[in-house]
Amino acid sequence: MKVAAYATQGAEESLQPFEIARRDLQPDDVLIEITHCGVCHSDIHTARNDWGRSHYPFVPGHEIIGRVSAVGPQVSRHRVGDLVGVGCMVDACMQCSACHDGDEQYCEAGMVGTYGGIEPVIGGPTFGGYSRSIVVRDEFVLKVSEQLDPASAAPLLCAGITSWSPLKHWNIGKGDKVGVIGLGGLGHMGIKFAVALGADVTMITTSPEKGEDAKRLGVKDVLLSTDRSATKAHLGSFDFLLNTVPVKHNLNAYLGLLARNGTMVLVGAIEPLEEMHAGLLLANRRRIAGSGIGGIAETQEMLDFCAQHNITCDIEEIAMQDINAAYDRVVSGDVKYRFVIDMSTL
Amino acid sequence: MKVAAYATQGAEESLQPFEIARRDLQPDDVLIEITHCGVCHSDIHTARNDWGRSHYPFVPGHEIIGRVSAVGPQVSRHRVGDLVGVGCMVDACMQCSACHDGDEQYCEAGMVGTYGGIEPVIGGPTFGGYSRSIVVRDEFVLKVSEQLDPASAAPLLCAGITSWSPLKHWNIGKGDKVGVIGLGGLGHMGIKFAVALGADVTMITTSPEKGEDAKRLGVKDVLLSTDRSATKAHLGSFDFLLNTVPVKHNLNAYLGLLARNGTMVLVGAIEPLEEMHAGLLLANRRRIAGSGIGGIAETQEMLDFCAQHNITCDIEEIAMQDINAAYDRVVSGDVKYRFVIDMSTL
Repeated sequence: MKVAAYATQGAEESLQPFEIARRDLQPDDVLIEITHCGVCHSDIHTARNDWGRSHYPFVPGHEIIGRVSAVGPQVSRHRVGDLVGVGCMVDACMQCSACHDGDEQYCEAGMVGTYGGIEPVIGGPTFGGYSRSIVVRDEFVLKVSEQLDPASAAPLLCAGITSWSPLKHWNIGKGDKVGVIGLGGLGHMGIKFAVALGADVTMITTSPEKGEDAKRLGVKDVLLSTDRSATKAHLGSFDFLLNTVPVKHNLNAYLGLLARNGTMVLVGAIEPLEEMHAGLLLANRRRIAGSGIGGIAETQEMLDFCAQHNITCDIEEIAMQDINAAYDRVVSGDVKYRFVIDMSTL
Repeated sequence: MKVAAYATQGAEESLQPFEIARRDLQPDDVLIEITHCGVCHSDIHTARNDWGRSHYPFVPGHEIIGRVSAVGPQVSRHRVGDLVGVGCMVDACMQCSACHDGDEQYCEAGMVGTYGGIEPVIGGPTFGGYSRSIVVRDEFVLKVSEQLDPASAAPLLCAGITSWSPLKHWNIGKGDKVGVIGLGGLGHMGIKFAVALGADVTMITTSPEKGEDAKRLGVKDVLLSTDRSATKAHLGSFDFLLNTVPVKHNLNAYLGLLARNGTMVLVGAIEPLEEMHAGLLLANRRRIAGSGIGGIAETQEMLDFCAQHNITCDIEEIAMQDINAAYDRVVSGDVKYRFVIDMSTL
């Protein structure tokens, strides 16, 4: 079927209206009329070929909210009219040990990305959510509570789960001292989740203004990483650091903040980091880990937690036509904290 | 009391005979006549002030084996005549949560190093095991089985426990695929322990010759990290990597070898490492950790395990007078795998 979308035609091109082919509904497929799609920094990196692996035409968008408009005969989990979400992946092998463990994002055969993956039925690249509708395999469609504002819920599908997964995987809860480094799409959700999970949360930032905003989001304390004596007072005290910094940076000052057996999880940067001092890891038996999005069951768990705790993202809603200006604002850090496209404007 | 020892007087100086002051026996002290002392690469780094924090005169040595020759009235664990060992630390606060957990090496007040620490009774620096005798607090003296060859047991006190602690802390056992990176004092003990714990062990090295030697030590497989196709076949397959490389190096190729949730533990390098690609951590939710020596109870557990499994270090015994030549050979990698000083030659 032919579907309206917005696409880039090259690294230097702006996003423009474009018609894409979606596969026809398969027996286990769900057809979703997209109502909202979040704007993730990865969309921009891929649109602009920052990682050198983009193919054009490219349709971004992997923070998708919409309503089911049709289902294949084998679909049992979703019904026409349901509010649903689609995140960063639309398929995986479902046979390997990662898929078996609910870690579809680490599928050994490679998960199929919502955009830029290999469309398993009609071939070619998968196209993302800056589009009128999308066809997705039953298992990769998430239920979204009617209690959640659909626009504000959209970024839960990437920014949300990316922050949630490490907090759950490392069992963060009551009594844990957690630091969130960086306040953007991921960081602001990391704060909301860690606070809701009962942790003592500190915002770690270079900007006093962001510190104030983090207090509004529920942090107990703000550590200005430029303040040497404040940093010294926090040395060796954090059980867990959620590092959402999206660019190359130096980890050493953060490592010193970790307590014995403490872990810093990187969720923002996907690039080489500056030289790290091994002595800071040997001291206190510290750990660094990476974490990428989350599995399907884990994403559903997060969405249900959000409905229970009335958690959504802080967003600024835009029309589809405003997308190119929005990209420039994301790159300059001028959004609190996520743009979401009202897809009825397409 | 005055005790004969070997010391350096400056970064450029060779080791020479030197007389040191040891504290008199305190009520909870053990006096040990040293029979053997291992030569650790850290001894050389400190003697030559490679880390910029050495003070002179400096007496190296923290792989100490000897016999108890006197005990204070409060000593209950050790008796005159016992074969005992002393490792990298001789005291800690024993009050903090790290000490409480048996992690004296991460004591929040700072453990007292066997050399270069602050002597808690008479002040000044602590002096290491290149010496006739040493006075050590009861709790920091380890029992060594009479079944173990005392010379070959000496390096267990640093090289041994440094390799043992992460294997135990990360619960390595039957069925785990473990890679040991680097074959020196630490690496050869890492292989022996991981094999004895039931893991499937692979030696990861750039040298075919070291690969052959590792087979003799019990590894199932050898991965030449210079062999691209062999490396490709091992990608994403290791549960655990023990990285014993003692110099600045690049972690990226090793990170790619780790399976989902796999951990690489650094025990060799205490310096800045080359730039690491964060994407390799995000993929497969990989982890890097550091680990330094081990706690006292853990060291005793290792020594008992060694007695049970007849494990000691592969050593070359030297006279005290040969120490300066031995240092040069350690630096050029010319030892299999540890020099141990016969202290009767002092």
